[in-house]
Amino acid sequence: MDGSKMAEKTQLITPRTLKGFRDYLPETMIPRERLTEIAQQVYRSYGFAPIDTPALEYYEILTGKGGDETDKQLYQFQDHGGRHVGLRFDLTVPFARFSAQYINQIGTPFKRYHIGKVWRGENTQAGRYREFMQCDFDTIGTESIVSDIETTLVIHDLLNAIGFEGKYTIRINNRLVLSGLLDKLGLSEKTVPVLRALDKLPKIGREKVAEEMAASANATRQQADAVLQLTELKGTSDAVLSSLATMLSGNATGEEGVEKLRAVIKNVQAFGVSEETVQIDVSIARGLDYYTGTIYETFLSDLQGIGSVCSGGRYDNLAGLYTKQQLPGVGASLGLDRLLAAMEELGELEKISTPAEIFVPYFVADRLGDYLKLAADLRRAGHKVEVYPEAKKLGQQLKYADKRSFTWTVVIGEDEFAQGTCQIKNMKTGETVHCALDEIASSL
Amino acid sequence: MDGSKMAEKTQLITPRTLKGFRDYLPETMIPRERLTEIAQQVYRSYGFAPIDTPALEYYEILTGKGGDETDKQLYQFQDHGGRHVGLRFDLTVPFARFSAQYINQIGTPFKRYHIGKVWRGENTQAGRYREFMQCDFDTIGTESIVSDIETTLVIHDLLNAIGFEGKYTIRINNRLVLSGLLDKLGLSEKTVPVLRALDKLPKIGREKVAEEMAASANATRQQADAVLQLTELKGTSDAVLSSLATMLSGNATGEEGVEKLRAVIKNVQAFGVSEETVQIDVSIARGLDYYTGTIYETFLSDLQGIGSVCSGGRYDNLAGLYTKQQLPGVGASLGLDRLLAAMEELGELEKISTPAEIFVPYFVADRLGDYLKLAADLRRAGHKVEVYPEAKKLGQQLKYADKRSFTWTVVIGEDEFAQGTCQIKNMKTGETVHCALDEIASSL
Repeated sequence: MDGSKMAEKTQLITPRTLKGFRDYLPETMIPRERLTEIAQQVYRSYGFAPIDTPALEYYEILTGKGGDETDKQLYQFQDHGGRHVGLRFDLTVPFARFSAQYINQIGTPFKRYHIGKVWRGENTQAGRYREFMQCDFDTIGTESIVSDIETTLVIHDLLNAIGFEGKYTIRINNRLVLSGLLDKLGLSEKTVPVLRALDKLPKIGREKVAEEMAASANATRQQADAVLQLTELKGTSDAVLSSLATMLSGNATGEEGVEKLRAVIKNVQAFGVSEETVQIDVSIARGLDYYTGTIYETFLSDLQGIGSVCSGGRYDNLAGLYTKQQLPGVGASLGLDRLLAAMEELGELEKISTPAEIFVPYFVADRLGDYLKLAADLRRAGHKVEVYPEAKKLGQQLKYADKRSFTWTVVIGEDEFAQGTCQIKNMKTGETVHCALDEIASSL
Repeated sequence: MDGSKMAEKTQLITPRTLKGFRDYLPETMIPRERLTEIAQQVYRSYGFAPIDTPALEYYEILTGKGGDETDKQLYQFQDHGGRHVGLRFDLTVPFARFSAQYINQIGTPFKRYHIGKVWRGENTQAGRYREFMQCDFDTIGTESIVSDIETTLVIHDLLNAIGFEGKYTIRINNRLVLSGLLDKLGLSEKTVPVLRALDKLPKIGREKVAEEMAASANATRQQADAVLQLTELKGTSDAVLSSLATMLSGNATGEEGVEKLRAVIKNVQAFGVSEETVQIDVSIARGLDYYTGTIYETFLSDLQGIGSVCSGGRYDNLAGLYTKQQLPGVGASLGLDRLLAAMEELGELEKISTPAEIFVPYFVADRLGDYLKLAADLRRAGHKVEVYPEAKKLGQQLKYADKRSFTWTVVIGEDEFAQGTCQIKNMKTGETVHCALDEIASSL
């Protein structure tokens, strides 16, 4: 190596990504695009319309009252104009800002979906990424239970379309049920400490939760038991609804919660959605303050531990930080990255690094026009086709096709051109069939 | 207004976006998603695979040798870990970094597309935005002219699929043609000042360009005339190719350029692509340093002034800043935002704010299940359907449908339910037809 080359070498910049960030190579990007497209199709099929908002927003818009955990994770800086700006950390805050700005122009009810990246400077130890996609849909401007029912159906259609039919459970609850009970027990002033204790049930167990309720909410053992008993209700939806009705009888809030749960369950079951697919789970609360009605979580039957893959709920007021206009709504968010991780773990992602299913080796050098024409014909018939760009040896090109995982290779050499035929090779089975050149499209 | 409400009001945060950034409401987002999907479909149909890279990169990765105009426009800051980071300003630099990092794992040739947002703190006076989408496709790892031909066909298929068939021109050139001429004229050492002067031709005219070439490149009048004459060649591709062949005869570089232009033109014309659609234009140069072979620009016939809507070219070495591995390639970028602006200006964007074509008013309150079932049936038949979530008066719901621009409204009241029929209203013509409830899907 001579001096100039040494110099050149030391000047190279090491190609690398930032900690917590990642590149998507074709084999991970192809399934990600597939899931995004399914989400778009399902959302659109219910009349949800797409919106987009900037990645960068004013710091004050993003932080609102500010000062919490999210604030610490925010990517923030001064821009060229000296403005204090930040990268959005979710799609809910931008949607709230967006709604406050345009809702009078757009009108209600407004159904929107928003698929986009968000950024959080989180601790990466837990396998979390600092950049990820969110995939939200919401209906705002209406308190109608119809939208809660529809939200359940959208989650159902989404999971079915992705390929999890019969292999997931949507767990629903209604915050009014618990509110009603606390009200009935005279604990409604203690909602926050009670829910905080309840939240620890899976970790610390029944006894310790009751102790904590006593300590932090001054709850008697009887009160604590009543709360625990409610959240532990199991059985068919009918059985749970019947128990809830009894437990909450006489409390208007609680009764309203039970009726709303019943309306959602009844209407989705009328569609043939099974008892197993949509279940009542009174233990889910999803945040203490934000949600005020129906709450959704979705678990994969074969991989419960990965957590909810589609969550959401009903809220009373989306955009209170930015407008006096009350905007109630309901919606959920598909956990795209979590779902992809689950599919990978379940072995449901094929290792494919090309979106095209057909490969056409180019190896009779002076027949370029014919290869290109064949590919164009196949494309017109709806196929995705790659032609190798160099007239290299067939063996080399077949190795390339194998590495990329094409489904079919259409081989045409001198003999085939002379006879007007081709060989179609199935790259998975190795099987080869012969057919006429003008019949390829119909043979595939 | 009492005191507490006053306090609440003064605490509201004004909802607004940063200067140079914008929100996409449904009526602008729907066509943007349509174009993105067309681009994905066309790219995939040629075997280009999707990739993605982070929005944030190390500052040194983004700036490379640094210090130019782009550098000043870069959004940059220190992250939580004290790293100097920036928001990507194009998709080429991240692709170069990506290729240096993974090309040995992926293998060549590698065909990728990348659709994503980029950020530049540009002057917003010229109607430019600080956040915009790029939509690139490239083939790297091969010098074969087949990829240059294919790039032309991809641009052609893209514009046709978007709806501009017969209403655009792809102008192609080859940098070797001009290099060959400068070489022949003994001006190859003066390439930069000659091209810089030539670049001003549309603005300052022939005489002033010749003067500048004399001043900055020491070019004689005869040399300047030869350069100008070359770039002014007009006529059919055959005529231009023939003139070029004569002018560059004897110079190997120039002859190679002419042969490559000829190969591209000949092969795309063999597909029935017309003489008007792909034209040779020896005056386009697109950057002085980066491109080394074929160059592409694409103009809309009815809106030339908006500039090229799809540009690109061939380069010798994509990732020289990050790796010693030579990666030649060819590709282009669809100017999504510019194309959308053009379509709006040409009146080719319909004002539609819903992705669903069918609206189902819900106005017999106790028939919710039937409305929902009808919508589900229509969705299964491939339609996109919105059901109004509240049992309001029909007139109010029809106003909503009109504002959102649904194509059809399916009206079912008490009478229709009793008779098992419905009214299908065409929202554009106002025309109404009656049909049986179980025949709606086939009537639409």
